Amino acid sequence: MQPDHYVLRLLYAHGVGLEDLGVPRRDGAAVEADPCKVWQRFADHYYLFRGTPTGAWLDYELHEVFGVQDQLSGDTAPRIYDEIREKLGSPEFRPRALFERFNIEVLATTDAATDTLDHHRAIRGSGWKGRVIPTFRPDALFRIAAPGWPAALDGLGVRDYSGFIGALAERRAHFKSLGATATDHGVLAPYTAALRQEAAERLFRLALEGRAAADDEQRFTAHLLMEMAGQSLEDGLVMQIHAGALRDHNRLVFDRFGPDRGGDIPVATEFTRNLRPLLNAYGNDTRFTLVLFTLDESTYSRELAPLAGHYPAVRLGPPWWFHDSVEGMRRFRERTTETAGIYKTAGFNDDTRAFCSIPARHDLARRMDANYLAGLVARHVIAESDAHPMARALAYDLAKQTYRL
Amino acid sequence: MQPDHYVLRLLYAHGVGLEDLGVPRRDGAAVEADPCKVWQRFADHYYLFRGTPTGAWLDYELHEVFGVQDQLSGDTAPRIYDEIREKLGSPEFRPRALFERFNIEVLATTDAATDTLDHHRAIRGSGWKGRVIPTFRPDALFRIAAPGWPAALDGLGVRDYSGFIGALAERRAHFKSLGATATDHGVLAPYTAALRQEAAERLFRLALEGRAAADDEQRFTAHLLMEMAGQSLEDGLVMQIHAGALRDHNRLVFDRFGPDRGGDIPVATEFTRNLRPLLNAYGNDTRFTLVLFTLDESTYSRELAPLAGHYPAVRLGPPWWFHDSVEGMRRFRERTTETAGIYKTAGFNDDTRAFCSIPARHDLARRMDANYLAGLVARHVIAESDAHPMARALAYDLAKQTYRL
Amino acid sequence: MQPDHYVLRLLYAHGVGLEDLGVPRRDGAAVEADPCKVWQRFADHYYLFRGTPTGAWLDYELHEVFGVQDQLSGDTAPRIYDEIREKLGSPEFRPRALFERFNIEVLATTDAATDTLDHHRAIRGSGWKGRVIPTFRPDALFRIAAPGWPAALDGLGVRDYSGFIGALAERRAHFKSLGATATDHGVLAPYTAALRQEAAERLFRLALEGRAAADDEQRFTAHLLMEMAGQSLEDGLVMQIHAGALRDHNRLVFDRFGPDRGGDIPVATEFTRNLRPLLNAYGNDTRFTLVLFTLDESTYSRELAPLAGHYPAVRLGPPWWFHDSVEGMRRFRERTTETAGIYKTAGFNDDTRAFCSIPARHDLARRMDANYLAGLVARHVIAESDAHPMARALAYDLAKQTYRL
Repeated sequence: MQPDHYVLRLLYAHGVGLEDLGVPRRDGAAVEADPCKVWQRFADHYYLFRGTPTGAWLDYELHEVFGVQDQLSGDTAPRIYDEIREKLGSPEFRPRALFERFNIEVLATTDAATDTLDHHRAIRGSGWKGRVIPTFRPDALFRIAAPGWPAALDGLGVRDYSGFIGALAERRAHFKSLGATATDHGVLAPYTAALRQEAAERLFRLALEGRAAADDEQRFTAHLLMEMAGQSLEDGLVMQIHAGALRDHNRLVFDRFGPDRGGDIPVATEFTRNLRPLLNAYGNDTRFTLVLFTLDESTYSRELAPLAGHYPAVRLGPPWWFHDSVEGMRRFRERTTETAGIYKTAGFNDDTRAFCSIPARHDLARRMDANYLAGLVARHVIAESDAHPMARALAYDLAKQTYRL
Repeated sequence: MQPDHYVLRLLYAHGVGLEDLGVPRRDGAAVEADPCKVWQRFADHYYLFRGTPTGAWLDYELHEVFGVQDQLSGDTAPRIYDEIREKLGSPEFRPRALFERFNIEVLATTDAATDTLDHHRAIRGSGWKGRVIPTFRPDALFRIAAPGWPAALDGLGVRDYSGFIGALAERRAHFKSLGATATDHGVLAPYTAALRQEAAERLFRLALEGRAAADDEQRFTAHLLMEMAGQSLEDGLVMQIHAGALRDHNRLVFDRFGPDRGGDIPVATEFTRNLRPLLNAYGNDTRFTLVLFTLDESTYSRELAPLAGHYPAVRLGPPWWFHDSVEGMRRFRERTTETAGIYKTAGFNDDTRAFCSIPARHDLARRMDANYLAGLVARHVIAESDAHPMARALAYDLAKQTYRL
Repeated sequence: MQPDHYVLRLLYAHGVGLEDLGVPRRDGAAVEADPCKVWQRFADHYYLFRGTPTGAWLDYELHEVFGVQDQLSGDTAPRIYDEIREKLGSPEFRPRALFERFNIEVLATTDAATDTLDHHRAIRGSGWKGRVIPTFRPDALFRIAAPGWPAALDGLGVRDYSGFIGALAERRAHFKSLGATATDHGVLAPYTAALRQEAAERLFRLALEGRAAADDEQRFTAHLLMEMAGQSLEDGLVMQIHAGALRDHNRLVFDRFGPDRGGDIPVATEFTRNLRPLLNAYGNDTRFTLVLFTLDESTYSRELAPLAGHYPAVRLGPPWWFHDSVEGMRRFRERTTETAGIYKTAGFNDDTRAFCSIPARHDLARRMDANYLAGLVARHVIAESDAHPMARALAYDLAKQTYRL
């Protein structure tokens, strides 16, 4: 539970200290070490999750995955804790057993561009048949104004811009050799713009000298997104952009506990003007696939569905993060289908850090999509005979097709 | 079908080349010339329109207008093609016969300010009683930074700013003499601001010299919208603003096929601050009517309904373009009625380029409005006895009243 | 009715002059003086309110509070007028009798920071047990670029910045001594940023000299919001921010009739970046409560629910003003619950100026919340046994808890 920021943030919002939930502090100060107490604290506050997707997933996990019959509460917490601990110790609950029980065809991780991917190699070498593939995420290499950039660059072993671009292509090839079919790019704004070669070289040198400023980084990232699209055209990796999260909004939580502790807050996001350079360069190419994710729902009908309903390369990713929810999924379908149809959406995928939540999340998404289609049938917008292939497409085909699986 | 960008864009988005759909290229290069093959290609991809309003309209047109019994698909395409071709050759399917069958009281075209309106004169002279009227759309004359501006200006035959303003008034009078009751203005942002006379003259001279830049055009357009509102007060023409489409987003499609091929993408739009100068000058005058259309649904409840719920001159146009749909109409009513009531909305109208879609679109809009009212009755928000005059207002009275028909 | 801008604006929007509704003019020119005629005019146009919350509240007030059996219309207006007038003259309809009949536990007014609060003192001294408390609203003191600032400052009796801050703390203490538990801050944008002491002093001196400009005011207000949060931490007053109304959009109406006549129009509002300084300084402190209200519904799921779902200090105020309506409340719950849960919302409160509308508004809010919960139960998102405590929390507990009542 500690690494699941979906759970942490709502407890924190109600005044439960992250220390009391066992979240490690950067300064090494003591935090709650007894997982049993952390679980009790969580269960005491479980009512806070009423009506939230996190609550729905956890209920599903407890009941369907772990076979727990009781409703979680402060009272039942110790018993359920013991029940889960016992189950987790059994062979049926080892990760590979669950992977097979969950009937997972493919599981993709997200990995830094400089990651050695040793774990992926180990899985491949183990003889196990489960398909676990990496995803190429070079964000850290693009943030030339961030303090962590030199360290990230060290992993690449290059000292000039041309080498940098070449090394990115090599890393992509390495990811691909271990099964990767996609890249992922997290950006505040999906700003894209090509730089001339000399300008890109100059920014790279600035960064090497530790003198790159925020707007240098913005222009460099905008340029690198163009480069990544170009490399996707070469190597066939599907490009994903996740836009709109202002990371580490809460300085105190970041300083004390590091990133991904619930302190990321969305901002209004612009796609129409920002993506124009990239789409003009690559968006008409049917060999290229760009999957867009947003945290700003006002863009669904205004920008994203019109873009996906026109450019051959564009697909819409499923509702993401805060919007991966009953109402969020409903809004997504209602606001995108009429302009883009369902066949330009990417099928369901999620960003879970909780392995056991995978069936819960897929189950919820399938129910919502089935419910959406049933509503269309009931209102005679589509025929029931149309709904069947559409349901299959939403549950299965579109994800395989979009991600070239 | 070729000129209907509602249809084209979704096929293009799935990789069907516009050439293969028979869309003429600007460079004169060969495109598919066999309409039968184009129809087949369209029918093969008809499943893409499932759940879209275009699909609903086409179903209605085929079944209700053309009496086709089969569902359109790749298999049925040739048979349906023959059936439609035969019908289109019969006297019952000539445009004027359909006009009467559709029970159209008024049909308004949209015409460049410099249009001679010969077709309108011809209809009037033909003795036919159908009411077809022009709408004054001077956009091309306002775009002083566009390459096409000198050509547009030639149609007006003036060389100075005062002559320009006078000629606009004369053209409006000419349109009015042929039945026009409204003007229409397509803008990216609905920015309005009066310039002093000398500043307007200076911008006009800059434009004549071919030196007007984008921001000159923006200020000139903002000023001309004020002028148009003033002229509307004089001549009684209803003013319409359609805001928020970034035209020709896709450079390749524009270069190859020209405008209106599906490559227009909406942007976030601001009305509160942008319209303030115009509304402060003319918005309190009950003789003036300004109908606002948006592609940014977030403005419905935030800006548009409050503006219409306060300024006597403001009316809200129906959901437009991407939002002229089942869910789009639902959102429009749910987000505007509570603040502005239904009586400050303009009734239904659409921007169709497909004559046969007119009954389909009006039928859908009436069903959605009736359904909205029925929901209010079911939840006891309004009485059933209130719903009847409201239904009539939405289906008929408000459009006639708003557009002074 | 004259002071109720919810009613006025829709009549004005349909061309009924504010003079004809008896709204006093600033220049003292004559306006309709016969309340009976004003009532008739209002009743003649009552159909305009069909489907609006104002219509629903008025129906409730007439039927439930005044026991009127007829539906209000032009025909029934005189009879209903007499009926209401008679009732208002009876002891059961004196304000304190209604206060008790409405079963009001606490009623909070909003008062200028410099208000003497004599009325509040008088109520306290009267021996009556009704709890009526003030709310500290220092907006006029923050608007250093406004013509009214010197007059507002006179009420405070200070001439330098340190004295100003000290006097604000003293006024807060005075409000608190008369029962206040909260402050309220109306801002166009919720921009917050601390100034260094000297910069704040310089802005204050500029203002004293009448030389403060709009951007000076913006920075000063941003700084004072930080100061107010700091003082809230000291004195325990709950801080409320109402953001996003562009006041007095209609110059003519403002010049002729003054503020609050229906001419306030919302604008797009940004919370994530704007509140970051304040939340980084105070948002992690569980002793501090900040209640946020918006007129921009696109911020519900994008910014507000994520902020409330993370920062311990943040609560979401109920849908406000234009959004205090059936659909507005539905959207609020649907867009905030999944991210923030219901337990970070503030319970219902409203900004009514019409005493008799209080039960109508609370009744509507409770029905909407109950309906929302019932929908969750029906779809098995929550258990019925969960819905009961949630309903009580929404109807009662959360408001008491949030506002420390």
